[in-house]
Amino acid sequence: MDKKVEQVIKKFAESVVNVLGTMAMTEARPGAAFVKKDNRAGGDISGVIGFSSSTGRSKGTMSLTFTQEAALGVVNSMLGEEFSSINNDVEDAVGELTNMICGQARKGLSEIGMNYEGAIPSVITGKNHSIRHVSSSAILAIPFETASGPLIVEVCFS
Amino acid sequence: MDKKVEQVIKKFAESVVNVLGTMAMTEARPGAAFVKKDNRAGGDISGVIGFSSSTGRSKGTMSLTFTQEAALGVVNSMLGEEFSSINNDVEDAVGELTNMICGQARKGLSEIGMNYEGAIPSVITGKNHSIRHVSSSAILAIPFETASGPLIVEVCFS
Repeated sequence: MDKKVEQVIKKFAESVVNVLGTMAMTEARPGAAFVKKDNRAGGDISGVIGFSSSTGRSKGTMSLTFTQEAALGVVNSMLGEEFSSINNDVEDAVGELTNMICGQARKGLSEIGMNYEGAIPSVITGKNHSIRHVSSSAILAIPFETASGPLIVEVCFS
Repeated sequence: MDKKVEQVIKKFAESVVNVLGTMAMTEARPGAAFVKKDNRAGGDISGVIGFSSSTGRSKGTMSLTFTQEAALGVVNSMLGEEFSSINNDVEDAVGELTNMICGQARKGLSEIGMNYEGAIPSVITGKNHSIRHVSSSAILAIPFETASGPLIVEVCFS
């Protein structure tokens, strides 16, 4: 894994840990990141957000995929609720977290000379859906464990 | 519906008709567009792509959601295949169509003074998933009919 890729992974991993810690009082423990051409993340609820450089020369996308249990654990802690299934509030909270994680990571990336503007997050709900980023370049995947279950962040650039 | 919204809908609707016609020899008949605060699109396969202005002051996202039947009809016609279920090739084709539809619509938007750079498309697969764009502004939804079934394009800006 080259140095730039390692730096990018670090920025996103730090952002996940910070945002979930601060916003949802949730400890997210990063696992080993991996790079794969034909990766897909599977789960029950995902946030996805695009970003692009102001010149349009570089662009990317980030997704954040949870099992239902992990999403409910994180969001209930964030909102002080006891939701037992995914509803509009859970979806909005996942959208907010997606936005904040990407925003904080973009701030980190700007420190290493990569400047991007973010788009509007979308949230996908559906038991056992999969997400595939359509890019010829590699996809960086960073798995995390929380007390209520796993989540995975995927990032790709072109 | 104000004039700007009508223009935006027109640019996206024209792009869907053009791209599906040219790339997939598929006639897409636009239905009445609608604007809704709490809209969500449901289907079996969706492409989603973000975009943002170079200043970061304005941003948006677009999704393109198909039933499995509609996606297979369009993609089989596009690729000259006879796929009977969603596979990697179908996902990649939906990602390509999403990219092209958004690209051509952005070109149209630039003619009315709205300049955006696109992000990388992501494709979501999952029987009966739903997509929700997390934005305080309205979501524009444009339904289409094709010979093999319905699809819906949703766009939102902030």
